[in-house]
Amino acid sequence: MAEIFLALIHHPVVDRNGRIITSAITSLDLHDIARSSRTYGVRALYVVHPVAQQREFARGVIDHWHIGHGRSFDSRRVEALDLIEIVADLDAAVAATERAAGRRPAIVHTSAREKKGMSFAAMRELIAQADTPPILILLGTGFGLAPAARERADLALEAIRGAGDYNHLSVRAAASIILDRLRGR
Amino acid sequence: MAEIFLALIHHPVVDRNGRIITSAITSLDLHDIARSSRTYGVRALYVVHPVAQQREFARGVIDHWHIGHGRSFDSRRVEALDLIEIVADLDAAVAATERAAGRRPAIVHTSAREKKGMSFAAMRELIAQADTPPILILLGTGFGLAPAARERADLALEAIRGAGDYNHLSVRAAASIILDRLRGR
Repeated sequence: MAEIFLALIHHPVVDRNGRIITSAITSLDLHDIARSSRTYGVRALYVVHPVAQQREFARGVIDHWHIGHGRSFDSRRVEALDLIEIVADLDAAVAATERAAGRRPAIVHTSAREKKGMSFAAMRELIAQADTPPILILLGTGFGLAPAARERADLALEAIRGAGDYNHLSVRAAASIILDRLRGR
Repeated sequence: MAEIFLALIHHPVVDRNGRIITSAITSLDLHDIARSSRTYGVRALYVVHPVAQQREFARGVIDHWHIGHGRSFDSRRVEALDLIEIVADLDAAVAATERAAGRRPAIVHTSAREKKGMSFAAMRELIAQADTPPILILLGTGFGLAPAARERADLALEAIRGAGDYNHLSVRAAASIILDRLRGR
């Protein structure tokens, strides 16, 4: 079984007009995606942001739950947040994955606009195989990953499809659905 | 195909110690669950809160996106928020479902602690059948639905299971996974 790693990307991502931007870190993204990650056996969640101040903010969110009231209030939350590592760019996330898993990961692109992409069923099978490298799944904040992130990926996952044409899930919802499709029982 | 309705319950729910409480409405719950609802063809999302002031707050969140900047900024968000109806209690949600669907709904309980419950596969099949009544799925905020909500339900869904024993998803993540399992493609 291949290990799964997530990278929550804040740059380069696009805004609603397709312009390349750097999005802000959202406290609730960290909580929600960490809890989903822990539930589905993700090895580490890399929060990727190029701005040092934003990385400090994210560390503050995590530290809050490590001390005093936070820890005693909800230890399961701390267990989830412990999966988070805060890094400056995708290279650092790839390097950290390689250190943790002992092998270079396959980088997997995700997008609501993906027209082709590997099916979830095929990716699930791939993950179940013994010789598959660790999988580093890129999640885009804002209105999704910029083309530059796509170019770094070895594979792309098909878009999540709901009941109709509307597809505008939050990154928190998309992350949980992706993990459920790949590792849920 | 049976229509799906959601009820996001803020009372009666439990806190981490199992005490019955009334939780506060969270703006992000409305956004995330409305977007997931729209993506998976949910007919209406009832936000259930017994406190008038809290219901006013929720209306304010929705109205913000209906006027001026909000609307022009992101019309897809408005499309999702239009699914929300704010009601005082479960009875009102059931009555609204019956008005919208023309038939009394089957009330479905969800919980991370459910030991038995109908499987997602069986519920998906049930929904696909022509003569199934509308389905009203109860989602608990806080640490989940109180026993009184369980007693109102006609059916219970099995708990979502991840990769191991940890199961502490946010209600936003749980809602999206439930919908994906019941209606995803």
